Amino acid sequence: MAHHTAARRGPKPRPGVRDTIIQAGLSTIYADGYAATGIQRIVEVAEVPKGSFYTYFPSKEAFGTDVIDAYFERAQVRLETFLNDAELPPRARLEAYFDALIAAFRDTGFLRGCLLGNFSAEAADHSAAIRTHLVQHFKTWSHLFEACIAEGQKAGQIPNRMPAATLADFILNSWEGALLRMRADQSDAPLLAFRSVVFGEVLA
Amino acid sequence: MAHHTAARRGPKPRPGVRDTIIQAGLSTIYADGYAATGIQRIVEVAEVPKGSFYTYFPSKEAFGTDVIDAYFERAQVRLETFLNDAELPPRARLEAYFDALIAAFRDTGFLRGCLLGNFSAEAADHSAAIRTHLVQHFKTWSHLFEACIAEGQKAGQIPNRMPAATLADFILNSWEGALLRMRADQSDAPLLAFRSVVFGEVLA
Repeated sequence: MAHHTAARRGPKPRPGVRDTIIQAGLSTIYADGYAATGIQRIVEVAEVPKGSFYTYFPSKEAFGTDVIDAYFERAQVRLETFLNDAELPPRARLEAYFDALIAAFRDTGFLRGCLLGNFSAEAADHSAAIRTHLVQHFKTWSHLFEACIAEGQKAGQIPNRMPAATLADFILNSWEGALLRMRADQSDAPLLAFRSVVFGEVLA
Repeated sequence: MAHHTAARRGPKPRPGVRDTIIQAGLSTIYADGYAATGIQRIVEVAEVPKGSFYTYFPSKEAFGTDVIDAYFERAQVRLETFLNDAELPPRARLEAYFDALIAAFRDTGFLRGCLLGNFSAEAADHSAAIRTHLVQHFKTWSHLFEACIAEGQKAGQIPNRMPAATLADFILNSWEGALLRMRADQSDAPLLAFRSVVFGEVLA
């Protein structure tokens, strides 16, 4: 009876213009970079008139923070899917998470890396607003790693006794660096080196 | 008698225009990013007419590769100074190297990071020429770490038995990631987390 539910009765919902522009910005900035992406290009990809942009976003910088939030919103869903998977022990959850990311980068030809890392390289020095959003999302990301590592330490599965928060930050940052090198090398070698040292030494 | 050497006899050497432009590009791109830096801005900083740029560089991309080379040339001098210092055991050389970098980033307010990492984030996906120069310099950098780590393993000072090449790549890439996070956080915490895990775990 799913076709009789209320959600199907009205006219087919159109995604809002604001969201269309954010999704266009996300794909374009992720592929080409923040400085290289002009507002003109974004409205072209979104297929909206240029005036729409300023209806929704006071500036490119404000738009940038919305794009960062939209990116991390999706990333966080994936993170939580893997890291809260009670079927697996904590260390194996982390491994499964990184293996899924490595497979995805292999599929897409080692491009683009992480949007948070890209904004950190390009814009963090120049925009307090962008920096604030980066700090917040990196912190959320690291806290999810930390909880998983702490659980593994408590269960005796992760023998490393360094503070879980330090290990979590180190692993997150090292992943970001592995992605930079992946893009230079256009290969998965940096991701596999990350995997072998993190799971063979740091969390062993 | 140094003032009588041949080098002092002729007219005072002026730095070449080409080098002036490269140095202007290096400081500007390092501070503001590659896409954000136009050729107009570079010739203004270099105080040369715009035509000069195209006398020396066929394109912004070719110029970018020269800027990358100029950056790494300096970085390599520092690297070799620290890593070939026979006064210290290999592990302590690596520590001294990173401590000097951490102190320098503290002095300059946690800005700019590493130009090779910045180009990897911004331009590696889009320029085979730039990518080639990044690959080469990262490889040189990693080989210097590798030689030092292998020496420490041989001397029994670094007990970790993973291949020195893997450890070297991992450490280099993790450093690059720590620099990204440093710029987001505007603090040395990511650099200190790097230091404590690398020297307390990975090379311990």
